[in-house]
Amino acid sequence: MESIELAIDIGGTKTLVSAFIEGSQEPLASKEFPTFPECGADDFLARLRSVCEGLTGSGQISRWGLCTAGAVDPDTGTLVWSPNLGWKNLKLFERLIPFLGTEGVIENDCNAAAFGEWAIRKDIHSLIYVTVSTGIGMGIVFGGDIFRGANGVAGEIGHTVVDPNGPLCTCGRHGCLQALSGGKGLEKIVKDSLNREIKTKEIIDRAKMNERFFSELVTRASRTLGRFLCNLIDSFDPELLVIGGNLGKNPFYFSSIERTIRDNHYQIHGKNFEVELSVAEPSPTILGTLLLSRKLKTH
Amino acid sequence: MESIELAIDIGGTKTLVSAFIEGSQEPLASKEFPTFPECGADDFLARLRSVCEGLTGSGQISRWGLCTAGAVDPDTGTLVWSPNLGWKNLKLFERLIPFLGTEGVIENDCNAAAFGEWAIRKDIHSLIYVTVSTGIGMGIVFGGDIFRGANGVAGEIGHTVVDPNGPLCTCGRHGCLQALSGGKGLEKIVKDSLNREIKTKEIIDRAKMNERFFSELVTRASRTLGRFLCNLIDSFDPELLVIGGNLGKNPFYFSSIERTIRDNHYQIHGKNFEVELSVAEPSPTILGTLLLSRKLKTH
Repeated sequence: MESIELAIDIGGTKTLVSAFIEGSQEPLASKEFPTFPECGADDFLARLRSVCEGLTGSGQISRWGLCTAGAVDPDTGTLVWSPNLGWKNLKLFERLIPFLGTEGVIENDCNAAAFGEWAIRKDIHSLIYVTVSTGIGMGIVFGGDIFRGANGVAGEIGHTVVDPNGPLCTCGRHGCLQALSGGKGLEKIVKDSLNREIKTKEIIDRAKMNERFFSELVTRASRTLGRFLCNLIDSFDPELLVIGGNLGKNPFYFSSIERTIRDNHYQIHGKNFEVELSVAEPSPTILGTLLLSRKLKTH
Repeated sequence: MESIELAIDIGGTKTLVSAFIEGSQEPLASKEFPTFPECGADDFLARLRSVCEGLTGSGQISRWGLCTAGAVDPDTGTLVWSPNLGWKNLKLFERLIPFLGTEGVIENDCNAAAFGEWAIRKDIHSLIYVTVSTGIGMGIVFGGDIFRGANGVAGEIGHTVVDPNGPLCTCGRHGCLQALSGGKGLEKIVKDSLNREIKTKEIIDRAKMNERFFSELVTRASRTLGRFLCNLIDSFDPELLVIGGNLGKNPFYFSSIERTIRDNHYQIHGKNFEVELSVAEPSPTILGTLLLSRKLKTH
């Protein structure tokens, strides 16, 4: 009977499950399905079970990893709180044992992604991973370990207020980092200013074409994020900053963030530091989750 | 023959040497003298030697610690570069052995201070120490260890550009953190704006009295620093932020920084986080340096 490893990424909109054979980093098969978090965790877990069973076939699950946005306690396998999913204090690990077995890990998605990006690079001591898509998140790896902070919420930067006079955020405060520099934030500013629904990609394209309103908007967005990251780079002196996410990987947006960092960080002889694009395949979250599950000591 | 421990803090203007008996954290005797860095390291080291000999008397130095501003390599005991002193690649450890012995440590002053503040608190996992006086520096302790970063320059935040349109800094760039929020920076802005030399303390006092120019200046200064620290707090989730330095400990300035942090950081249930004033005695640097030397395994 074939031995299968599963990596699961639960997103607010879609959930992705990939199956691997032992030792491989290339998925044998993958399946994406809508999360429908509003239907509740029971409904979701039933659908997840059938997707996992479909992918596993006659094989046996030898280990699994799962990641999701929000505050996760990897020790107890509890999803403490996920604003994207609207779920609280869900004993996820316990609920997954019946169909996945006990050889599993549960991790925050940005932490998993940071670990994935760290793992595919050679001899990197410390890495900060930032994902920029609808929102903004961060994961940190120091010395091969995920850095969690004192309360387990290190990297929760999306709702740090960077400009109290900035635009209203979904959280009710003004000028959160992701309200200024995330995709959903950019779309909202455009909607509020021009009363038109324009997708993030088009906003960036029009900035690139030098249309004044969009150019100024995107310049402010990338500089705000670039300066935020500068503060971290000078404070924590990581070896590498990796930028991922649909918006973060957009070449125009990425190069503008990178330029801000280069221009504003403290330049001192002997300080080696790089900014790179996310490159982990099939995705930083799936690869990271898979590799974290492989670090597990068998129970 | 009595056993003496020495802690030395080399500042740009003054150098402080304190002598302790084993196990005590209260100085037996201290001596402060001008550093005169422009006279060169040879001259300084000769004067340091005679001060140390004076303090030690007939006792024997059992261990010693030394801290100074700038990039220090604690492994080799080299002062790599100190902008305050103007000294480069000084093999400090080697030069001190003849009169202090081999049982010593050399550390960056902010790292030493962070360690001192960490050591006097019980059961603290992680702490960020920020000193605000003429300039701005930072030291980080995670899990009882000084956090140095990939290149050994973690915490070098004084010259991170936070506002490229901000005032000219001593380093030649515009809008460095310390040009906006440090004491020397505030004095320079006042000089450039009002063509008058006013000391930092008076600037803060006049802000407190609500004199408009000073009030706006100090509000901008404390908010700039508060937001900078917010970014770190949400990114690295430390248990504690300790603010020290003459300006940082000024009650008016401190409370303004603290308020900015409270208003702008990400508030999530279960996130415990405190901002405190520096309290280590006789000073964070001297206590930290002493305690670091006591961690030394005898060679």
